[in-house]
Amino acid sequence: MAPQLDSFFKQVDTSADAFIERLRKAVAIPSISAEDARRPDVVRMGHFLADELKALGAEVELRPLGKEPHRPHLDLPPVVLGRYGNDKNKRTILVYGHYDVQPAEKSDGWATDPFTLTVDDKGRMFGRGSTDDKGPVLGWLNAIEAHQKAGVDFPVNLLMCFEGMEEYGSEGLDDLIREEAKKFFADADAVCISDNYWLGTEKPCLTYGLRGCNYYSVEVSGPGADLHSGVFGGQAHEPMTDLVQIMASLVDSKGNINIPGIKEQVAPVTADEEKLYDTIAFTMGDLHESLGSTTTIHDETKPTLMARWRYPSLSLHGIEGAFASPGAKTVIPAKVTGKFSIRTVPDMDIDTTNAAVYKYVEEQFAKLGSKNSMKVWAQHTGKWWVASPKHWNFSAAAKAVERVWGVAPDFTREGGSIPVTLTFEEATGKNVLLLPMGSSTDGAHSINEKLDKGNYIEGIKMLGAYLHYVAEEPQN
Amino acid sequence: MAPQLDSFFKQVDTSADAFIERLRKAVAIPSISAEDARRPDVVRMGHFLADELKALGAEVELRPLGKEPHRPHLDLPPVVLGRYGNDKNKRTILVYGHYDVQPAEKSDGWATDPFTLTVDDKGRMFGRGSTDDKGPVLGWLNAIEAHQKAGVDFPVNLLMCFEGMEEYGSEGLDDLIREEAKKFFADADAVCISDNYWLGTEKPCLTYGLRGCNYYSVEVSGPGADLHSGVFGGQAHEPMTDLVQIMASLVDSKGNINIPGIKEQVAPVTADEEKLYDTIAFTMGDLHESLGSTTTIHDETKPTLMARWRYPSLSLHGIEGAFASPGAKTVIPAKVTGKFSIRTVPDMDIDTTNAAVYKYVEEQFAKLGSKNSMKVWAQHTGKWWVASPKHWNFSAAAKAVERVWGVAPDFTREGGSIPVTLTFEEATGKNVLLLPMGSSTDGAHSINEKLDKGNYIEGIKMLGAYLHYVAEEPQN
Repeated sequence: MAPQLDSFFKQVDTSADAFIERLRKAVAIPSISAEDARRPDVVRMGHFLADELKALGAEVELRPLGKEPHRPHLDLPPVVLGRYGNDKNKRTILVYGHYDVQPAEKSDGWATDPFTLTVDDKGRMFGRGSTDDKGPVLGWLNAIEAHQKAGVDFPVNLLMCFEGMEEYGSEGLDDLIREEAKKFFADADAVCISDNYWLGTEKPCLTYGLRGCNYYSVEVSGPGADLHSGVFGGQAHEPMTDLVQIMASLVDSKGNINIPGIKEQVAPVTADEEKLYDTIAFTMGDLHESLGSTTTIHDETKPTLMARWRYPSLSLHGIEGAFASPGAKTVIPAKVTGKFSIRTVPDMDIDTTNAAVYKYVEEQFAKLGSKNSMKVWAQHTGKWWVASPKHWNFSAAAKAVERVWGVAPDFTREGGSIPVTLTFEEATGKNVLLLPMGSSTDGAHSINEKLDKGNYIEGIKMLGAYLHYVAEEPQN
Repeated sequence: MAPQLDSFFKQVDTSADAFIERLRKAVAIPSISAEDARRPDVVRMGHFLADELKALGAEVELRPLGKEPHRPHLDLPPVVLGRYGNDKNKRTILVYGHYDVQPAEKSDGWATDPFTLTVDDKGRMFGRGSTDDKGPVLGWLNAIEAHQKAGVDFPVNLLMCFEGMEEYGSEGLDDLIREEAKKFFADADAVCISDNYWLGTEKPCLTYGLRGCNYYSVEVSGPGADLHSGVFGGQAHEPMTDLVQIMASLVDSKGNINIPGIKEQVAPVTADEEKLYDTIAFTMGDLHESLGSTTTIHDETKPTLMARWRYPSLSLHGIEGAFASPGAKTVIPAKVTGKFSIRTVPDMDIDTTNAAVYKYVEEQFAKLGSKNSMKVWAQHTGKWWVASPKHWNFSAAAKAVERVWGVAPDFTREGGSIPVTLTFEEATGKNVLLLPMGSSTDGAHSINEKLDKGNYIEGIKMLGAYLHYVAEEPQN
């Protein structure tokens, strides 16, 4: 039976102004994790959240993380760990968000003061952190408050993990998650993260996958120092020539990866998966707009989205050590390092992929017959994440979306990475759902970041409804 | 009949200390053309030269060149135009040199003060400009003085052109040479430039060729701005992928240029030319030392020297617009510009070469089937130069070398360019000879620049002897 949510929804509408006021207070705290001078504001923001939660009756801990590794003069801001409800007969849902924000200065080109929430006549609420991620974090608090005011029983036990370093590498968080997996997070039945965005502007989505990333360097060296191309051109094996041959062998202009052992690892598309793509609200026009050009490889949305979400891609990022300035310089660089990365997908294995890359690059170099030296290595690797969109955590969220927005959500993946997703999955062993509140036009890391009033208020309803549905959803 | 040079040679030995003293005075003037603050010293050096020449009885003009184009707050230093002798029955030889020097600071790593000529116990005379080019320039003055003191008739009319901007692009010189070709330089029967170096340290050489240089840019662009490789990788044609394919198609690791229409233009090796390579004092060890590695394409000296001097080479210099720093950045650059150059040789034509490059690059890009945009253009071009080593100007110089050093000179070319050589040839229509005084270890643009006392003193004899032989050499 569908949960009775009307009085909760009504209360959210009634409290809308108060909830916007809460967001205004949060945006006013410039909790920029990247800037030393703003660290006290980040800490203040953690305390603000903790105080709001306590006022709502939650148990709260401000968990210190010690000194910041690369800026040891600074204490890391605390992780806010909260619990609301402790009923053994209810499911326990763990939610994650972050209360720090990207840097912002009015002079960057903001139309309004970035730390003053400014609502325009279209209901766009401008302010740094409005959509990333203060709006969604406060969404959980607002949902609790609306339940209390409406006198509706809160359907689950809610565990909360809000960090203050997400925009600066989530320093210290992975260790905490692993450490608390069997302690503070031990009761969690499922995880929900609201820190990404709809694919477009009209239709909500549930995100069930992210690509991983293996980042490689290939170094070719020969001469003892940079050479003059007039004096030496034609006599010595040039490292740039060798490196460019290797880089050109990796991928073609249509994006096909030439390295044997990569596409062989990719999970085949199932009929179920393919069906998910049929209804997705996405046009080539959307992509052209975000690209700033029409230079797409595919002309149709389905292969395009599959290329973004469920197939690997290889990008050549650049070359270190070569001439990179404007103008002309007749140098033969002595040592050059090419950088490229592979976005990885199920069922690619990090070690298998590394081995395939190393073997191929070494073979390509050997073919050149050059006397130069070559080294290839992975600078960093990160695994892909994918969840079953058929898990009860997702089907509950889909029902909530349909109830609030009147439309079935798109099931989406993302081309990039949100590493904490995988950490939660691995540490807790539970299903993780990405449930975005904002839309694709919110400009999370840009000037004039905003959250639409509709996305915020209906989003609060969606988060609350999700908790009701997920409380009841049969296990599958 | 061989000229009677004994009393001239004896006088050079007698005056050796005075000639070294003259070099000491010249080195003491820090005539650095690249540094604003040193401009008065460059001018002072021009006046020093003019005064010395006048004292020797030469007619001298200090020819102003106006304002410096890119530093209009500075006057260009004057060109010193000199004439010594005006006998219609004698040949007239035009010599070129420069009196400005490269920058130098003791703190760069000099063992001695760069502007104090310091002679060590091996006879090495350290000082900025000692070999490049004050020693050779003063060589002509010393030869005049030794003739006077020895009471030997000066065998030719000597025209002198000494500039003060060689190390900073020879601003204004080309125009002056073209303008004076039928005026001040009208009588010249041949040209001699002493501003390069022996191939090694033991054996003098005469240089009869230089490669030219065509420098190209290839720009590939697509997206409106740099993209995140997670969000966009796999969906759009990436400019870096296209550019690297194009760059890789230009040249292979053995230095073979893949562009049709380049090697077809190269003049075949004649039997006469080939013979010149047989006796050249040069070992692979010399090359390994200057390379700082053993990563040579060829294992023998002959193909190596031919690759340096008489075949074209193509070097990839770098890419502008891509990620070029240490570390990892997951960027898809929106616009990248590859830089490469071709060293050109006889009988390559600049326009034919440009057309071949443009056609090939456009074909390669078309093959990729990319929606990106591509442009290719020449940033700058400069023609090769080659003279006949059988011209009487060279055969006279060869006799002078044999007389002074007791060994036939190597006939060499150079891989790089000395553009003024071609300007003199084209403007005067006369044969140009490069007659170096210093050796390969002099470190012309480095710290601890030096000229060996032997190269200086015997070099003065060689310049004087050359004038005697060239006065008598039958025209061919």
